[in-house]
Amino acid sequence: MAVTFARGFRAGTAACGIKAFTTGASAIPTNQRDDLCVVHSAHPCDTGGVFTTNKVKSASVVIDQLHLQRNRVQALTINSGNANACTGAQGFRDALLMAKLSADRLDLDPDQVLVSSTGVIGRFLPMDAIKPGIAQACETLSPDGGESAARAIMTTDTHPKTAHVEVDVGGVTVRVGGMCKGSGMIHPNMATMLAYITTDAAVEAGLMARMVKTVADRSFNQVTVDGDSSTNDSFLILANGAAGNEPVRAGSVEEEQLQAALTHVAQELSRAIARDGEGATKLITVKVLDAATNDEARTAARAVASSSLVKTAVHGGDPNWGRIVCALGYSGAELALDRLHLTVGGLVVFERGSGVDVDLAAVRRAFEQPEIEIVAKLGLAEGSAEAWGCDLSEEYVRINADYTT
Amino acid sequence: MAVTFARGFRAGTAACGIKAFTTGASAIPTNQRDDLCVVHSAHPCDTGGVFTTNKVKSASVVIDQLHLQRNRVQALTINSGNANACTGAQGFRDALLMAKLSADRLDLDPDQVLVSSTGVIGRFLPMDAIKPGIAQACETLSPDGGESAARAIMTTDTHPKTAHVEVDVGGVTVRVGGMCKGSGMIHPNMATMLAYITTDAAVEAGLMARMVKTVADRSFNQVTVDGDSSTNDSFLILANGAAGNEPVRAGSVEEEQLQAALTHVAQELSRAIARDGEGATKLITVKVLDAATNDEARTAARAVASSSLVKTAVHGGDPNWGRIVCALGYSGAELALDRLHLTVGGLVVFERGSGVDVDLAAVRRAFEQPEIEIVAKLGLAEGSAEAWGCDLSEEYVRINADYTT
Repeated sequence: MAVTFARGFRAGTAACGIKAFTTGASAIPTNQRDDLCVVHSAHPCDTGGVFTTNKVKSASVVIDQLHLQRNRVQALTINSGNANACTGAQGFRDALLMAKLSADRLDLDPDQVLVSSTGVIGRFLPMDAIKPGIAQACETLSPDGGESAARAIMTTDTHPKTAHVEVDVGGVTVRVGGMCKGSGMIHPNMATMLAYITTDAAVEAGLMARMVKTVADRSFNQVTVDGDSSTNDSFLILANGAAGNEPVRAGSVEEEQLQAALTHVAQELSRAIARDGEGATKLITVKVLDAATNDEARTAARAVASSSLVKTAVHGGDPNWGRIVCALGYSGAELALDRLHLTVGGLVVFERGSGVDVDLAAVRRAFEQPEIEIVAKLGLAEGSAEAWGCDLSEEYVRINADYTT
Repeated sequence: MAVTFARGFRAGTAACGIKAFTTGASAIPTNQRDDLCVVHSAHPCDTGGVFTTNKVKSASVVIDQLHLQRNRVQALTINSGNANACTGAQGFRDALLMAKLSADRLDLDPDQVLVSSTGVIGRFLPMDAIKPGIAQACETLSPDGGESAARAIMTTDTHPKTAHVEVDVGGVTVRVGGMCKGSGMIHPNMATMLAYITTDAAVEAGLMARMVKTVADRSFNQVTVDGDSSTNDSFLILANGAAGNEPVRAGSVEEEQLQAALTHVAQELSRAIARDGEGATKLITVKVLDAATNDEARTAARAVASSSLVKTAVHGGDPNWGRIVCALGYSGAELALDRLHLTVGGLVVFERGSGVDVDLAAVRRAFEQPEIEIVAKLGLAEGSAEAWGCDLSEEYVRINADYTT
């Protein structure tokens, strides 16, 4: 499952003690968890990637952008526990060495390997620990390794995050699977988000570079806030062609079919990130419909899903629609209050410019469900989007959650 | 003191039970705290205001923008407990009535009164409670009423926020005092910020409308995040001329003197907001120097001061300079890592492209002070700015504060 669900992909892992070495712990725990993984494809992949917009980029991100230019990627090497960011020339040497060590083991060229790191910023990678780790991960490569790989990339995540789907693309069954790490607390954006989707679809060269942006806009970018990205954020899609379908071309019906499958997996992973806030007890899905444009819908949905006051209201079961309207208002999206139609858990709470005199107890019950859907129809045009967040609990809630009740 | 420090200003307060009436509490507490205040000037004031950029604006904000056009304001009427936002036509009638009731009592025209509201969104103002409250506040007007007024405008604030200063403007002693409400927790911006500064300086007509923007950019906008403003945010400066100085003209040395005094008071109030986060134990001051422009310096300083990961690191006494560099990186300001020079509590932690091997225990001690100063010299040009924030504690900290130690 996960990144090994699609045919032709294998994954292996190793426990290197990277975080302990990085932070200079006096003793390396004997009971280490996996903190490095290698993903290998039987064939070179058409690969697309989107990366952090932060002006400070991890060495791994810079190397990946370089390696993607040749577009013949066949392996990933990912470590947790150390971000290899703000590490100067040494950082680049270490990222290149990670690629080379994996390439040597897998009989590839170094530029066929992409590398990712996540963890502490500003410390050199403990290469003495990583070197044997890469060897071990390559030795344990298995078509059943997807779940272990998803665990190896975790940092503060409370559980591994995977998804997969099987679809028909041009009459051939194609598989899509993925894994990611990251958590959706207050600023989901500020903890590194790494996401990887693999598919056995055959595609024309360069198609993934085009599709990865569209998929990201409809998924991972909707649990993060534009611009506020970490030094290491990366999202990659690898397509290895093992399904044997006629290569998917840009603009075709088959591209739409594949796009739907990739988006489905990416949205499942995004929801898992949103749900994994420390202390979070529910998932908030925000749908914005009838916005001026899709872009404005995305902006508005994200503003509501990332509003701390909406999050605390949801946690407290407080039917405070004013906070939702406020977030829509500051999102920057076009808004006409008299056209706004707002539901929470299916109950209309605002329409025609003012709050509806609904049964507050029913609204409160809706907020108390483990999954809450907020739907804002802006009444302007055809733009639509979704965004995801989690509720916010504890001390911040004590100030805000009971504010109107 | 506060808004009654400058000569010719008086303030009065009343306890109306606005929040209890607004939220339909079954019984009005007998021991109400003040929730309404009136500030009155002996003379018409040159007045400047900046307001929320939220597309959803409280009726009070819209009314104030209208009344400011005549520029002969002589009184403020402010209530807490109900925001009078998303209240449609009734909201405008109520805001206008608040102004008219005060004007009638004070022998003014309604457009000489500005009104502000803060509290719950989407409920009508309980005018039956506000009406006698305005009468009482007008009856209790006193030159000693400033501190009580600062208490009456509080919502989730843990204490009243006031500041004042006396300066020489063109050889005449001029007084400047102010009050504000708001707290600087996670999204300081999303709780309404109200701020009022009064001065007895004489100024040429229209000068305050010009100066209020500059003052806001150097103070309140640096504890908030652009665009993320509530429905009611307002900052007003009133100058009544009671000091008897030659009216201050735009572009003069006297304008600079007055500007410095207004900025000083506004910055004191901003720091008080930053410090007043629930659970906050220290004030974080971020200075960005040698940026490409002042605007970029402001953006960069604000990004660091509002970074949840910097806030938690400071709380945990964790010398994690990587998080500061990361926030500078995503701020959007121009940044060249090899020119960046970063100090925390006076200790250099980053220069020439990488971290400095400092005494981590000394850095940790610096983080543990009640006030922490972070200074980032970008090495690009002359732009500079400050921003303020508070540390972040509790559950969120448990994930993040000990991440590198």
